[in-house]
Amino acid sequence: MEPSNLSRRRMLLSSGSLVALAGAGGLTPLSQALAQEMAKAAVKSLPAYASWKHADSLIIHSANTMETRRGAFGSGLITPLDRLFVRNNVSPPSEKIVADPDAWMLSVKGVKTSTEISVADLKRLGVVALPMVLQCSGNGRAFFPEKPSGTQWTVGAAGCVIFTGVPVKAVLEAVGGMDSGSKYMTGTGGEEIPAGLDPNTIMVERSIPIEAIEDAILAWEINGQPIPLAHGGPLRLVVPGYTGVNNVKYIKQLAFTKEQSAANIQQNSYRMAPVGEKSGPSQESVWEMPVKSWVTSPSGEPGQDVKAGKVQIQGLAFGGMSAAKDVEVSVDGGKNWVKASFVGPDLGKYAWRQFTLGVDLKPGQYQIASRATSEAGTTQPEERVPNNRGYLNNSWRDHMLAITVV
Amino acid sequence: MEPSNLSRRRMLLSSGSLVALAGAGGLTPLSQALAQEMAKAAVKSLPAYASWKHADSLIIHSANTMETRRGAFGSGLITPLDRLFVRNNVSPPSEKIVADPDAWMLSVKGVKTSTEISVADLKRLGVVALPMVLQCSGNGRAFFPEKPSGTQWTVGAAGCVIFTGVPVKAVLEAVGGMDSGSKYMTGTGGEEIPAGLDPNTIMVERSIPIEAIEDAILAWEINGQPIPLAHGGPLRLVVPGYTGVNNVKYIKQLAFTKEQSAANIQQNSYRMAPVGEKSGPSQESVWEMPVKSWVTSPSGEPGQDVKAGKVQIQGLAFGGMSAAKDVEVSVDGGKNWVKASFVGPDLGKYAWRQFTLGVDLKPGQYQIASRATSEAGTTQPEERVPNNRGYLNNSWRDHMLAITVV
Repeated sequence: MEPSNLSRRRMLLSSGSLVALAGAGGLTPLSQALAQEMAKAAVKSLPAYASWKHADSLIIHSANTMETRRGAFGSGLITPLDRLFVRNNVSPPSEKIVADPDAWMLSVKGVKTSTEISVADLKRLGVVALPMVLQCSGNGRAFFPEKPSGTQWTVGAAGCVIFTGVPVKAVLEAVGGMDSGSKYMTGTGGEEIPAGLDPNTIMVERSIPIEAIEDAILAWEINGQPIPLAHGGPLRLVVPGYTGVNNVKYIKQLAFTKEQSAANIQQNSYRMAPVGEKSGPSQESVWEMPVKSWVTSPSGEPGQDVKAGKVQIQGLAFGGMSAAKDVEVSVDGGKNWVKASFVGPDLGKYAWRQFTLGVDLKPGQYQIASRATSEAGTTQPEERVPNNRGYLNNSWRDHMLAITVV
Repeated sequence: MEPSNLSRRRMLLSSGSLVALAGAGGLTPLSQALAQEMAKAAVKSLPAYASWKHADSLIIHSANTMETRRGAFGSGLITPLDRLFVRNNVSPPSEKIVADPDAWMLSVKGVKTSTEISVADLKRLGVVALPMVLQCSGNGRAFFPEKPSGTQWTVGAAGCVIFTGVPVKAVLEAVGGMDSGSKYMTGTGGEEIPAGLDPNTIMVERSIPIEAIEDAILAWEINGQPIPLAHGGPLRLVVPGYTGVNNVKYIKQLAFTKEQSAANIQQNSYRMAPVGEKSGPSQESVWEMPVKSWVTSPSGEPGQDVKAGKVQIQGLAFGGMSAAKDVEVSVDGGKNWVKASFVGPDLGKYAWRQFTLGVDLKPGQYQIASRATSEAGTTQPEERVPNNRGYLNNSWRDHMLAITVV
């Protein structure tokens, strides 16, 4: 007796092979089959602090982890806030902290004049609107064959948003500059630390190289509205080009330091440790994002067969620390590539570009992939960089999807 | 006996003088005093089709007319959808029409091959993301001293959004091109016409010069999500640079015609008739938007006194049919002007720019104004163009506001 499609898919899901037979006889990349399983398994209800989110556009992994569905990014460049992913390392603080955002206090240390400054007063120092990709370090983790622990993000722990705030450099100027010899900018989140616990085990305190001050801002708005608690309001450290965790939420202290934070999240997490090894301070920190792209339409979601004829293959591409320069699309699993066109405005080097390629598709099975190249000249690789926690996946093969054209 | 502040303000409101004494002894432009009165008088509850709007950010004039408060535009360039103004000429159709947007049918006429095409099939023809200012023809009507009839809009019947859709030119190409001699593009809205009424008296059918096809799109998304009913979903004709009414909602027919529509809304409304005269087809139609700007922060709202010291004066500027090139700011009612800086990315010629000017303000009264100049070389005028219905107000003096610095 033939196994059912479902049991066959399950079997293949656990086989670790890169490309698996699934669905109506077509070739479905493991990545996509996994994503579909994840979506089905996901929790369905939103936590209170994110109750305003658009549940149908999200895969709700847990109360602290929700990602945008591949088909829900839209084609308007900026990710609508109610569709934007959420990822909290620990539970967020009380909603009370966003009731009067202007009253939130930030401590600035490692500067000529240590300062306590309110958001109201930060707003007086300057303002800039910064379109940028915000992406969780572990986005694409679900596609690692080694099944690293952590949230099984597919493509949706990322969004392109416009943060508004004051440049960190304008704040530095107001406090007389940073201490000489500072090597890191260290942000401390406002999460509550339960009494009796060593703060280092739980606090969200991240250090990033001092060069990051160049474009970093302290932000109070996202997409034109005060930052909601779910996204780090009333004040968030925003470091364009760096993965999500480095954009410290509810920031209560910004320090310019000679050493990296002693917090566990800095020393032993978010490190590029080899598979099977324990993470530690000797390994590279997860800071900058690499070049990446993925197709969003067709979305490859189950039951979403595509009608034959002209089809617009759409997707998103970004370069990480430099702009996306080019994107190629393949409909045959990466054998042949055609250059796609960018549509919509260029929002600056840290934002993503939206791309489209009109293709004529006859009935059949297709493997749709996209491959971006950055202004810095780096092309998205076929394979991910193996690491024990499944960080920084930018493999074009992993993000490929199968569609059936009827 | 001295009149109370309130009765004094009311008295001045009806005096027609340009600048009136109000509040704590300061000079408040009539425009601003009026806006404050309007806001207080406004209805407080949202209609069902717009129940998802952020009521605190809006002045709700009626179930079909809501505007963004001056202080609620945010500093992120794109107006959040839940803060965007709403203006319907007649009540919107049933919510049912947005249940399955892909199924909506558009009739295309005045072309080589007259066609009925679904939104699903329009999506196959091409895609473009278009950032643009959407503004009601009557935005700023409240500032006309002649008190024209119609909604008393202040600054908020405008927003900058990203529409996504297919270029009208791509649709024309697919149907073999327009009839020779076509002089207008005529869009017909999907509003329901009550039985027994002459459709021309009520239907929303607008004709615009054929040149507008150059950048026009048929849009199914706004700000990255399917267009809600309140904003003209499932399909809207989007004509960047043209006032709101020309961007036909729930469009059911797009025709290329030799004559303008016979509908009343084309023949006798949205015309630049002299004050006191009846509108008619001999007068100029309200189509293109002129250069305009206004200050958004400080917002000048009652009780929002500004603390002395450095203040970021922020606002929005657009050129209409060409980009905003420069903005100047005055803090003394237009006697002296200083050039402001644009912040954030340039989203293209139809979008607005966000500007800021850091100024040091001592305690006292200030009259804050902004004045934009377009790439086409036109500068926002001091005075509005008088007309019987209060259209196209771009007077910098009318949009000025008074603040008290303490």
